[in-house]
Amino acid sequence: MDFSSRLIENAVNEFAKLPGVGRKTALRFVLYLLKQDAREVARFSDTFLKMKNELKYCKCCHNISDSDLCEICANQKRDHSLVCVVEDIRDVMAIENTHQYNGIYHILGGIISPMDGIGPDDLTIQPLIEKVKHGRVKEVIMALSTTMEGDTTNFYLYKKLSEFNVSVSTIARGIAIGDELEYADEVTLGRSIVNRTPYEKQLPA
Amino acid sequence: MDFSSRLIENAVNEFAKLPGVGRKTALRFVLYLLKQDAREVARFSDTFLKMKNELKYCKCCHNISDSDLCEICANQKRDHSLVCVVEDIRDVMAIENTHQYNGIYHILGGIISPMDGIGPDDLTIQPLIEKVKHGRVKEVIMALSTTMEGDTTNFYLYKKLSEFNVSVSTIARGIAIGDELEYADEVTLGRSIVNRTPYEKQLPA
Repeated sequence: MDFSSRLIENAVNEFAKLPGVGRKTALRFVLYLLKQDAREVARFSDTFLKMKNELKYCKCCHNISDSDLCEICANQKRDHSLVCVVEDIRDVMAIENTHQYNGIYHILGGIISPMDGIGPDDLTIQPLIEKVKHGRVKEVIMALSTTMEGDTTNFYLYKKLSEFNVSVSTIARGIAIGDELEYADEVTLGRSIVNRTPYEKQLPA
Repeated sequence: MDFSSRLIENAVNEFAKLPGVGRKTALRFVLYLLKQDAREVARFSDTFLKMKNELKYCKCCHNISDSDLCEICANQKRDHSLVCVVEDIRDVMAIENTHQYNGIYHILGGIISPMDGIGPDDLTIQPLIEKVKHGRVKEVIMALSTTMEGDTTNFYLYKKLSEFNVSVSTIARGIAIGDELEYADEVTLGRSIVNRTPYEKQLPA
């Protein structure tokens, strides 16, 4: 694409860096911004700078937070002996939305992925181990995605945590509620039979 | 969605204002920005502010430009007696990419759309009329979209321009090259028969 202005080209290039945004979509965003008044654009632009500069990470769970300790970690009504390990804040939001979990979280900031150059040292694995070593953690629940990278990270963490007196579990894998058996993939269906749940433990859907 | 931080929430809201971006996509953008270093985010944020503040509009065709006169209008090799009327700069880019047009443009900045509160006075229709009245324009080509709003704008412009000694045409509507006749819609196929092109005028596909 050939732009009539260097300023437009720069703006399109910046938008096109966002995940899933191509140059055509980026141009659409740029034209939208151009139609807004200057104050609106200033606010748009300011918001991200402010977020980047002022945002803090909870020193306990590494969640994004406006203060040193996030709301979840600061809440003494939650069970601090139960830690759920997730990849990023989107997973925290998803789990919180279920209203089924009362423990705290630990945000890894990613998963081990040698292909992307992400090793254990790039994640908050050491703080998790410290937390388990010194803290009052009784159980660690791994809630990572079921990809090769997720499984690798699960295994790595399990090895590291098995030195301590803490039980490690993963979230249940099985047939999603509402799914039909005949369309389920074999691996999931196989696992759901092996890891069957006693009927009396069943929660209403 | 419930965010653990007001800063994140503001950033998500700003991104979600962009056309076609929902709150989930906006959150993905925000998490991407958070992973970049502060300098990168500063540049991202700066670019849009700079674009909005420094961008000029060509005083001849209202195209976006870095100077008072855009490259196309400043180019004396182009035919200044031929004006193509388009909705926005994306259309200019699309037509320029065909390498079939050697005239100049006039960017309306939108089309007449009472539903969105856009009337003739919100567009650059008056400057177009002035250009035709005083200038050396011989032909005006309308290249607007074939929606109800596009047709309304075409008709409005045609009425306004018919007072002057200028020929007004619209771009050809017909079966796209590569399309099969049996799948073409009736209106397009009908028009393509009525407005058939003499064989000797046919350009190679």
